[in-house]
Amino acid sequence: MIQSSVPQGATLRPRTLRFAHVAIIGKYQAPGSRHAVEEIAHFLHDEGCDVSLEKDTALNTGLSQYAALDVPAIGRDCNLALVVGGDGTMLGIGRQLARYGVPLIGINQGRLGFITDLPFEDFRQRLGPMLRGEYEEDARSLMAASVWRDGRCVFEATALNDVVVNRSGVASMIELRVEVDGHFVANQRADGLIIATPTGSTAYALSAGGPMLHPAIDGWVMVPIAPHTLSNRPVVLSSHSEIAVEIVAGKDASANFDMQTLTSLMHGDRIVVRRSPHSLRLLHPVGWSYFDTLRMKLHWNEGA
Amino acid sequence: MIQSSVPQGATLRPRTLRFAHVAIIGKYQAPGSRHAVEEIAHFLHDEGCDVSLEKDTALNTGLSQYAALDVPAIGRDCNLALVVGGDGTMLGIGRQLARYGVPLIGINQGRLGFITDLPFEDFRQRLGPMLRGEYEEDARSLMAASVWRDGRCVFEATALNDVVVNRSGVASMIELRVEVDGHFVANQRADGLIIATPTGSTAYALSAGGPMLHPAIDGWVMVPIAPHTLSNRPVVLSSHSEIAVEIVAGKDASANFDMQTLTSLMHGDRIVVRRSPHSLRLLHPVGWSYFDTLRMKLHWNEGA
Amino acid sequence: MIQSSVPQGATLRPRTLRFAHVAIIGKYQAPGSRHAVEEIAHFLHDEGCDVSLEKDTALNTGLSQYAALDVPAIGRDCNLALVVGGDGTMLGIGRQLARYGVPLIGINQGRLGFITDLPFEDFRQRLGPMLRGEYEEDARSLMAASVWRDGRCVFEATALNDVVVNRSGVASMIELRVEVDGHFVANQRADGLIIATPTGSTAYALSAGGPMLHPAIDGWVMVPIAPHTLSNRPVVLSSHSEIAVEIVAGKDASANFDMQTLTSLMHGDRIVVRRSPHSLRLLHPVGWSYFDTLRMKLHWNEGA
Amino acid sequence: MIQSSVPQGATLRPRTLRFAHVAIIGKYQAPGSRHAVEEIAHFLHDEGCDVSLEKDTALNTGLSQYAALDVPAIGRDCNLALVVGGDGTMLGIGRQLARYGVPLIGINQGRLGFITDLPFEDFRQRLGPMLRGEYEEDARSLMAASVWRDGRCVFEATALNDVVVNRSGVASMIELRVEVDGHFVANQRADGLIIATPTGSTAYALSAGGPMLHPAIDGWVMVPIAPHTLSNRPVVLSSHSEIAVEIVAGKDASANFDMQTLTSLMHGDRIVVRRSPHSLRLLHPVGWSYFDTLRMKLHWNEGA
Repeated sequence: MIQSSVPQGATLRPRTLRFAHVAIIGKYQAPGSRHAVEEIAHFLHDEGCDVSLEKDTALNTGLSQYAALDVPAIGRDCNLALVVGGDGTMLGIGRQLARYGVPLIGINQGRLGFITDLPFEDFRQRLGPMLRGEYEEDARSLMAASVWRDGRCVFEATALNDVVVNRSGVASMIELRVEVDGHFVANQRADGLIIATPTGSTAYALSAGGPMLHPAIDGWVMVPIAPHTLSNRPVVLSSHSEIAVEIVAGKDASANFDMQTLTSLMHGDRIVVRRSPHSLRLLHPVGWSYFDTLRMKLHWNEGA
Repeated sequence: MIQSSVPQGATLRPRTLRFAHVAIIGKYQAPGSRHAVEEIAHFLHDEGCDVSLEKDTALNTGLSQYAALDVPAIGRDCNLALVVGGDGTMLGIGRQLARYGVPLIGINQGRLGFITDLPFEDFRQRLGPMLRGEYEEDARSLMAASVWRDGRCVFEATALNDVVVNRSGVASMIELRVEVDGHFVANQRADGLIIATPTGSTAYALSAGGPMLHPAIDGWVMVPIAPHTLSNRPVVLSSHSEIAVEIVAGKDASANFDMQTLTSLMHGDRIVVRRSPHSLRLLHPVGWSYFDTLRMKLHWNEGA
Repeated sequence: MIQSSVPQGATLRPRTLRFAHVAIIGKYQAPGSRHAVEEIAHFLHDEGCDVSLEKDTALNTGLSQYAALDVPAIGRDCNLALVVGGDGTMLGIGRQLARYGVPLIGINQGRLGFITDLPFEDFRQRLGPMLRGEYEEDARSLMAASVWRDGRCVFEATALNDVVVNRSGVASMIELRVEVDGHFVANQRADGLIIATPTGSTAYALSAGGPMLHPAIDGWVMVPIAPHTLSNRPVVLSSHSEIAVEIVAGKDASANFDMQTLTSLMHGDRIVVRRSPHSLRLLHPVGWSYFDTLRMKLHWNEGA
Repeated sequence: MIQSSVPQGATLRPRTLRFAHVAIIGKYQAPGSRHAVEEIAHFLHDEGCDVSLEKDTALNTGLSQYAALDVPAIGRDCNLALVVGGDGTMLGIGRQLARYGVPLIGINQGRLGFITDLPFEDFRQRLGPMLRGEYEEDARSLMAASVWRDGRCVFEATALNDVVVNRSGVASMIELRVEVDGHFVANQRADGLIIATPTGSTAYALSAGGPMLHPAIDGWVMVPIAPHTLSNRPVVLSSHSEIAVEIVAGKDASANFDMQTLTSLMHGDRIVVRRSPHSLRLLHPVGWSYFDTLRMKLHWNEGA
């Protein structure tokens, strides 16, 4: 799943651009965003790329010398998307671009992200070789989630991080019936249940006691939040399975799909999670390692 | 804190009643409740006690030959309260009776509770000696909690299990500032925070990853729910400290005091927890052990 | 990975035996073992199978009317192995038979195992259809582990459950350097480190805080035991990666491979874990579900 | 337990020395130790104190102008002991001095400790007022542990951090029978069991999943290491109880008392933990907070 495309004879920098048309997406309203987007756009232009800006990015930065495209147009027309911001921005745009197969590079301004791993300070040295094909590709699986009521699908969403079913703050526990590929797993009484992708395994699921899943794992991790039964521990399930979670008891349950929320779930509602046919393509500089990011983000090896 | 009052020369059963006037509180609307309350009432009467029924218990069971008293009257007039039901019933009535110093005995109908440890089937053999003074007493600490807004107290409650501050289901994390005796502890980003008594340490706090506290511990355990920072682990604090939790960020936070809920907390609201001057007095048969209850409830020593 | 081989038109029981030659392996010295082995052998014989007994099983039970074969001979000559005993017996024989591709069925005498899921009481109704091809197959991955010192391989072992590197009881923490596919992961100070297969994820790794991995997951879980750094949480790694664990500091480290132990590891020793080319083939009755076993073994859904 | 002794009218610095005779104990063989010890000795001398050096500290630093005393002499003759080093040095000397009631101040050279909280760089500003009585005192409870075989006490030790019973690295689980005040708690199968003081609750017990105990808590925390039964969670017990741990099964069990180890425990051996009549007196600058130390050591509130 993680493949290197380092060309043979890498010392001879290949002159051919791998990505002719590059889109830039900036975090809206972030201070310093205009400056960063402008610098990157100029750099790409100088490197010989056609440069477009995502529509709202163009509007917010006021940069008018580049074409402004909406996300579907970026998906159809661009060969690469550069996202300037944090993991949240990357997740939002990645979820929309995954269906088009456009690869993304995440550039952070200050704080290393799990998937925005290229610091703005270094972007010139790092991006140059990547534009010519020297990169490592890392495909992230996505969930296709749906909510069913009385036999009808009432909601659909794609999630890159997680699907969460939980109680509202004022109610007590909810009870959820979990099935995998039609097999009964258990009725769980808990604050809620998280089903996370490898990408989401370092987010909310980790706080709730789940393990980290390497992106190469074809699995989801199912993590109960404050479960009533102490042996209800996290389970890693195949991402090729169909997971169904039914609301059995409890008031005011809601479901979250990354950041989208569906409230007022009713008893009998079923949240179904399948693997999306699409993946998010992330590009990293040659030599990148998932473990370097983990180690830095989680402050491993810092003495103590 | 746990004291035995086994009389000297215990083989000579003392003829004197320790508890002249006993109230019975039944779980309302529970099937079989009328039968159990009636049996116990007759038994107490035969043993020479004055018997009263809690007002709603009298109403729901339709037993009219015993005086019906409201809770304050039970507190003022009775020497002992027998609670027939589960831990929830016991907690509800215990919280109200604690201020009067009336001791309680919990009788369960089928499922052992953490604090309703006398099975209905055995009540005759067990209650007889207890009525004559052969029992062990176990005092449970209570919390006096309050909510402060703009320098004014806007809510007060007593809690026997826990005080919980948490986000609503649809919002993301909340941020809480914790202080103990005026000392800053940390700002915590989490789903919420539980402050539990020893009695509450085997309830929600245990599900969220907290330790059990023996009832003799003069402490509360503070347990974060799904904390963002992995080193935000449970901390056991002195129950003689004042703990303040301030809402710093996040939407729709609410606070629960046992089962009472205060919604729509605002930024700057402070939830303050102190030790109540009252304790709940629980009586158990001689030979009772807290550890027997733990072992049975948590299925320790069942092979596997 | 879990495939059903229910024949079309399953109501017409196929008359053809799928497994012509079946070996039985019994737990040595277990009381009642002779009786169980004998009953099963007679049953198989009546069903038309050639029956052999594993050499020590024959010796211990004193059953002499069946051929006695050693494990390699079973591997070469038999089409199926029935293991009578617990998970431990199953693991021991499974590790040896995996290379021959002989499938196994586990029969327990009383206590349900994670992989010995057929109760002895029911063996007749269950085994009959399985012998004719009505079963579900579940392939369990194995680890090929080796220990390297000064560039030379000094030990090799196959593990079906886990590879564990740990300190001795009298020493303090050890420090381990972990690499995955040549990438540095972290230096970990802990009591030890467990790398478990999906099969092993419900054993020691679970006690140490790891998640359960469904058998279909192509991964191992790496679980630190009492890690010094609180963010050193379990990580699920691809089973197609090479994991290397180097002893960096600490006295008297040892390594366990399922139950085999290598003591007196030295600083610089490297324990390397790769995926074995072989898998353990487990057969279950049609309708079997991994989740039913989990739910029963972990006492989910038992009220509380 | 934590008391402030800030004098009335604190702006008028009192001229009277509270501690006439002060001992200095340095971490042996630590680089820079001689320099630090010398600086502190000169400072104390200039402040008007009689200064002595612990015998080995005198030997290792070669400082001969101060009296050299062994630990019992320090206990008898000195009013205060300054420990220059890390938490380990502090624990070692604290355990020995506790019986004499001599208070300690811990000075670290670089890395903040849980109980060596005064940085060497600041020692002048901080120590001056403390010598005159402006300090906060924090008493740490100690364990008096003993090992019993065939009714005879075969080992005794004092522990400031923890008592640990565990298996050796090569054996599998051990089984321990736990009793508290003569009441059976449970038989636990695990890698081992930790009983930690509040001081030890931030050491090994924390790594094994235990909570932190504030020093004011009159309790120990009992934490199983990788327990076989998932509901065997940490329990906080009264430090006025007697805890007995008996070796029931397993090979090569050993017991650790802080850093002292007793190996080759036998089945039937009982490790008994009681509260020591002595406490360790730690002095801190006025304004010190236990929570500041926790927050810094555990990297709470560092963003991320």
